[in-house]
Amino acid sequence: MTVKLKKITPRLPRGFEDRLPAEIAAVNEMVAKIRSVYERYGFDPVETPLFEYTETLGKFLPDTDRPNAGVFSLQDDDEQWMSLRYDLTAPLARHFAENFNDLPKPYRSYRQGYVFRNEKPGPGRFRQFMQFDADTVGAAGPEADAEMCMMMADTMDALGLTGKYVVRVNNRKVLDGVLESAGVTDDGQKLTVLRAIDKLDKFGPEGVKLLLGKGRKDESGDFTKGAELSDAGIETVLAYVMAAGSETLFNDLESGPLAGSDIGKAGIAELRAMADLFAAGDYGTRIKIDPSVVRGLEYYTGPVFEIELTFKVQNEKGQDVVFGSVGGGGRYDGLVSRFRSEPVPATGFSIGVSRLANALKLTGNLNAQEPVGPVVVLVLDKDEAPRYQAITSALRKAGVRAEMFMGNTKNFGKQVAYADKRNAPAVIIEGSQEREAGKVQIKDLIVGKEEAKAITDNATYKSERPGQFECDGDLDAIVAAISALPAVKTYLDGAK
Amino acid sequence: MTVKLKKITPRLPRGFEDRLPAEIAAVNEMVAKIRSVYERYGFDPVETPLFEYTETLGKFLPDTDRPNAGVFSLQDDDEQWMSLRYDLTAPLARHFAENFNDLPKPYRSYRQGYVFRNEKPGPGRFRQFMQFDADTVGAAGPEADAEMCMMMADTMDALGLTGKYVVRVNNRKVLDGVLESAGVTDDGQKLTVLRAIDKLDKFGPEGVKLLLGKGRKDESGDFTKGAELSDAGIETVLAYVMAAGSETLFNDLESGPLAGSDIGKAGIAELRAMADLFAAGDYGTRIKIDPSVVRGLEYYTGPVFEIELTFKVQNEKGQDVVFGSVGGGGRYDGLVSRFRSEPVPATGFSIGVSRLANALKLTGNLNAQEPVGPVVVLVLDKDEAPRYQAITSALRKAGVRAEMFMGNTKNFGKQVAYADKRNAPAVIIEGSQEREAGKVQIKDLIVGKEEAKAITDNATYKSERPGQFECDGDLDAIVAAISALPAVKTYLDGAK
Repeated sequence: MTVKLKKITPRLPRGFEDRLPAEIAAVNEMVAKIRSVYERYGFDPVETPLFEYTETLGKFLPDTDRPNAGVFSLQDDDEQWMSLRYDLTAPLARHFAENFNDLPKPYRSYRQGYVFRNEKPGPGRFRQFMQFDADTVGAAGPEADAEMCMMMADTMDALGLTGKYVVRVNNRKVLDGVLESAGVTDDGQKLTVLRAIDKLDKFGPEGVKLLLGKGRKDESGDFTKGAELSDAGIETVLAYVMAAGSETLFNDLESGPLAGSDIGKAGIAELRAMADLFAAGDYGTRIKIDPSVVRGLEYYTGPVFEIELTFKVQNEKGQDVVFGSVGGGGRYDGLVSRFRSEPVPATGFSIGVSRLANALKLTGNLNAQEPVGPVVVLVLDKDEAPRYQAITSALRKAGVRAEMFMGNTKNFGKQVAYADKRNAPAVIIEGSQEREAGKVQIKDLIVGKEEAKAITDNATYKSERPGQFECDGDLDAIVAAISALPAVKTYLDGAK
Repeated sequence: MTVKLKKITPRLPRGFEDRLPAEIAAVNEMVAKIRSVYERYGFDPVETPLFEYTETLGKFLPDTDRPNAGVFSLQDDDEQWMSLRYDLTAPLARHFAENFNDLPKPYRSYRQGYVFRNEKPGPGRFRQFMQFDADTVGAAGPEADAEMCMMMADTMDALGLTGKYVVRVNNRKVLDGVLESAGVTDDGQKLTVLRAIDKLDKFGPEGVKLLLGKGRKDESGDFTKGAELSDAGIETVLAYVMAAGSETLFNDLESGPLAGSDIGKAGIAELRAMADLFAAGDYGTRIKIDPSVVRGLEYYTGPVFEIELTFKVQNEKGQDVVFGSVGGGGRYDGLVSRFRSEPVPATGFSIGVSRLANALKLTGNLNAQEPVGPVVVLVLDKDEAPRYQAITSALRKAGVRAEMFMGNTKNFGKQVAYADKRNAPAVIIEGSQEREAGKVQIKDLIVGKEEAKAITDNATYKSERPGQFECDGDLDAIVAAISALPAVKTYLDGAK
């Protein structure tokens, strides 16, 4: 009797995915460019492990019935809860606090790595994804925030996005002052107002006005309750959000809604200092003070900023919309002080790597091509494997991507099909006839495909052998002939 | 009354560590070299996520009382167990089976990434560490195994280890045939024999002989029970393990212990084919058939191989020992067939990234230096921040690593100390005097340190200002003067 073992289905848990060669190459290329800008700015890399103690991450101890809410957590042997990091900021705060005495202050670092969210995955939403962060810890002044904005702009330029982005800057203190003057005191109401401002892109000023007041009914009839500001309060917030041009805005705010707000004036002073630095660095319209920038609601305490890609794409309904945010950040002066009693100011920003890579593919700024495949040395005679190996080794020594075919060698057609699938620039053919004559056949698959297009009947194809030519069987001659093929030459030049 | 919040202690769970700039740079440099060899061999990258279903990894469903034995596991929302990968081979088998119809066959891939072991950490033993693997799936012949060995050798050469390594090769089938002929049939006894062979380096032939027989008492008096082979059996195994020189060994085995063993003869044929390929590739003594290679006990089914670094290091007792293995692998024809009914042959190997990096540091083949720091523009006058920013931006535009000082600017000495700590090549000084004169002071910190060594008294130091020189305050002039400093020039040349 034969027992049949049940086979396991090969699959991944939801929200996780494999990354293939073209994507790996594209992201590597993009990340190398980002890194070179950050290093020029004086930032150094640091890498933290994927696990941290749950309390370090600042999430509450997971409920034992649902230990996985929001973060992936598990209990260590000593009963302590550990979690997979859900961003790269909390681990940085831990690293800085742990190495406080040894690290230079200010401490500038960049970090690239995977973060994990234990959330319901959806289209384009993953439970493991890559972030690229930069932070300056221990610098209290707006110079550090301004530097973040300039670095974001220079990074976009380095990626080839000049003219296709704007770095938008705001300040939480100004926002707080405006809300104070609009009569918002309650935290719940403040949240509703911030959410309303965040919808300016989507609903326009009229929609935001409704959301600041009684509420807004959408096309389907659903009603969103508003912040219920007074008419004067609505005017104040709207005028602020819609304002453009920094110096006029600053003056109007100082003499208007922020006249009695110390925090609001402090925010204006910071934005003014930042605007002066942008001018000194000659950033022109690449960086823009924009009162409608809100950037989440959690821990930001001063300047906030985001990178918006301004080119149009079609949304799922076929409408033209701007591509939108690919990253952002702000000042978070509270995060490190969870570990230390002295205040530790910090500012930084994060780039969503996949989203930026997608944007670059759309603009044609990222090479998302299949890599050039290897030259395949076909095996026509299994007993002659050492000879085919010698050809392969000689090519590799010359820097050429090359391999000897290693599958089932009985079917010649399958070997050529394999080479095609690998995107091989050429195959090398040595049967017994060639061997006796001291020759090999080289088939340039790229030229061959071009020439074959002009051939319509099979007989001509077979007699003309498009792209195929004879070469001396000597190893040096083969290496020279292969190295001269245009696709191989390009690869060799690129590898230098 | 003030409520004092208890501060969280900043620390990592045991067995996890942060990676600092010098190590990140060194590993990146090493990995880039490894990758270029693998690509030349026709291998393409693939990356799988950190989580897999536990059943995919081939571990038993974790016990709910101790869900973390060996692997980090947790239950997903739908009650299914997921685990963090503990190697890069099981996820590859899943990836290949899942994409069976789309992937070229043979499928060659390399993978680099973190793996996790939920084990007791110790000195040099971590619960998260990096592996670098290469595998060929779907190639049954010894050509694929031979290619792995050649790729390991070429990788060591690319890393500068020529003459300091040997790739050692054996075959499980030969080992099985020898054990068969030595009368070993029981799996437990076989395990004891393999463990004994694995100790040849440590205990020498006499020690192995004891372990193959009744057992061995060590210096402390502890007794290890042996495999209890017959005297003839011990002779057969020892003669095999101690044999050197492949052709003699093969002949002796075929006419001797393996005369009646089909599996043993099949193993010899594979090793012969591999030796011919090594000769065709001109690998000389870089690859060696070595009957004492065992390579773990689990899933290998044919050729096994490992990279041994042969240079001497001191062990914890101060004795000279060879550095030893930094990676290895073998043929594992059973792993993919957990998912599919047809047989899927596979072979591959894995490099321990940290261990290899440590070896390269010892041999001086890996640059483990602190990266060159940024030029620091000191801030003597907070109100002049835009001017300091303009200098900083001009330097960055010219490709120079540069930053404006952003900490507390009141203490000039602390600014210079910061620059020193950052390994800065120079600082730029512009106080009100310099500004009025249209000049800046540049202090070359590297030359300064050299010159300062010759100065013994403080007064001379202050008057001579070692390494310091005046430069025109014009932005172009500053950029030219800084770019001409030797350390900056080296950085600029390297970045091209």
